[in-house]
Amino acid sequence: MPRGSGSGGLSYRDAGVDLDAAERAKKGLAALVASTRDANTLSELGSFGGLYAVPADLDAPVLVSSADGVGTKLKVAFAADRHDTVGQCLVNHCVNDILVQGARPLFFLDYLASGAMDESVVQEIVRGVATACKENGCALLGGETAQMPGFYAEGEYDLAGFVVGVVERAKLLDGSRVGAGDALVALASSGLHTNGYTLARRIVFDVMGLGAGDELPGTGRSVADELLTVHRSYLVPLTAPLSQGVVHALAHVTGGGIPGNLPRVLPEGLGARIDRSSWEVPAVFRTLQRAGRVALEEMDRVFNMGVGMIAIVELGAASELSEAVSREGVDAWVIGSVEPGAGVRYA
Amino acid sequence: MPRGSGSGGLSYRDAGVDLDAAERAKKGLAALVASTRDANTLSELGSFGGLYAVPADLDAPVLVSSADGVGTKLKVAFAADRHDTVGQCLVNHCVNDILVQGARPLFFLDYLASGAMDESVVQEIVRGVATACKENGCALLGGETAQMPGFYAEGEYDLAGFVVGVVERAKLLDGSRVGAGDALVALASSGLHTNGYTLARRIVFDVMGLGAGDELPGTGRSVADELLTVHRSYLVPLTAPLSQGVVHALAHVTGGGIPGNLPRVLPEGLGARIDRSSWEVPAVFRTLQRAGRVALEEMDRVFNMGVGMIAIVELGAASELSEAVSREGVDAWVIGSVEPGAGVRYA
Repeated sequence: MPRGSGSGGLSYRDAGVDLDAAERAKKGLAALVASTRDANTLSELGSFGGLYAVPADLDAPVLVSSADGVGTKLKVAFAADRHDTVGQCLVNHCVNDILVQGARPLFFLDYLASGAMDESVVQEIVRGVATACKENGCALLGGETAQMPGFYAEGEYDLAGFVVGVVERAKLLDGSRVGAGDALVALASSGLHTNGYTLARRIVFDVMGLGAGDELPGTGRSVADELLTVHRSYLVPLTAPLSQGVVHALAHVTGGGIPGNLPRVLPEGLGARIDRSSWEVPAVFRTLQRAGRVALEEMDRVFNMGVGMIAIVELGAASELSEAVSREGVDAWVIGSVEPGAGVRYA
Repeated sequence: MPRGSGSGGLSYRDAGVDLDAAERAKKGLAALVASTRDANTLSELGSFGGLYAVPADLDAPVLVSSADGVGTKLKVAFAADRHDTVGQCLVNHCVNDILVQGARPLFFLDYLASGAMDESVVQEIVRGVATACKENGCALLGGETAQMPGFYAEGEYDLAGFVVGVVERAKLLDGSRVGAGDALVALASSGLHTNGYTLARRIVFDVMGLGAGDELPGTGRSVADELLTVHRSYLVPLTAPLSQGVVHALAHVTGGGIPGNLPRVLPEGLGARIDRSSWEVPAVFRTLQRAGRVALEEMDRVFNMGVGMIAIVELGAASELSEAVSREGVDAWVIGSVEPGAGVRYA
């Protein structure tokens, strides 16, 4: 076929895609990715697929996987020009989602899309992803950094991720061990986690008229610090209780709040009673409710209200679990119980 | 905490997120997802993580995973208002990426983000994902449908996916079997696949001034039909050759073209010679080059030029492989050979 005329002809870079910059960014990420490798990680960055050996010492291993995004929490990162926390939120969210089935994470992959590459921002984002991967003992096995001219506003991006973990089939948590009278143990969230940001931003930026650097009333922290707080991983505090077999079920409190998530792990015929007096809802939620004049039922459904994870255990095991979790630096308390019925009843 | 005032207060829906619509959409997807289940799929839609049993009959199984997006091919889908093909492109792209390491896919997860939910479009997209999952024998194990008000233009979305496959460690393709004198067998692409769309759209829509329904000169097809052609999966035509052990290496020709991808599977000290006279570059690429006055080197680096996959085999096995692949409906031919050196040399 004929060669292009050269002068005046179009190139990929003219059209908005810079393959050289993408290649440089990929090389810059190599050290970050390498820092997350473990003995089962077989591939280097740059191979088409990431390689991970199935751990050989497991009986009937079941892979547990989950895909998630960061949602509009990203808009707060854009406003604050702070990009090292959202990757941590993403990894921890995914890790929690498979933890509720008893799985520990093996590896993670990310998808990062923007209109144009800002290499330093990409580094910051992936550093956050790699940091959380290390903290959760999982390998960052690969990912995709997509240049999508015309899709994203300047300085904006979308970030999604995907985790694969493993659990032995006999240790799968599927809710079948849950019974009436079991205790619900709440594990404190670290803030809004990764849910409700479209409403939270509307209230904070539009209704309250605050900027990212302003103090968020009642919290003693800036809007950026409070709203970008990293979504907590519950892997470390729950690893020992899970291995001891005391946990009947776990519910990760994400979009839908406690009423939307807790029933997902309750067997047919069982519901939950939540005792509102058992905890003080953290200041950030109270501020949002007051300033946005949000109905309490709506707050419960959109936000975690200070409860990031709920563990279901036998009543007699509840205080020991609370203490074990608290020793790992995460507040935990009995928030209610399982009872005959359906759904969640607040008392 | 105090209840919201009700009238005048903000809700999540006011802020642009409709949890009920999301729930309805999720229910609508359940049948599509269920149609991809196999004997190792243990979870139902709605559990926090997707469950997949590691196949028990494998010796030293290695998991191979890959993340990818559809890129700006999505803009063509928006222009044509046709959303059932991009999910197929996504799955097939990911399947090809792990196939090059010898892996067959086990399961897939998708990430779909838009500003607001259009339930019928979501159904169309996921139907495409599920169709390709079935064709490739992999389970659609889960995914995330994210509502991101303020991120995407009306009617637009982003779509990414993650595949996990498996290969026995002894059957991993890592390029180590490639030697000088090996033949390069090209497998025909079905069109642009999923790469180069930012440049292609610039040429077709801006330089040529065509619309999605206009005929793309030289192709006898509409712009939409040609540019939305599904990215081909090479799993079926290559399954038998891989199981017979005749394939030394595979290269999936994606972003970077042949020069960017073939060297990724060549050992140190080896390069490739590509014989341009061995095939006729399909009309769509010739039209793009001519209309955009794109340099040939740039064409080679941005587009697949009609070659979607390259298999490396012993010279004596090349014609048998070509015939076996062609019998499965995919044109295949010897396109060159491995030779001492580095990189790709066109002759």
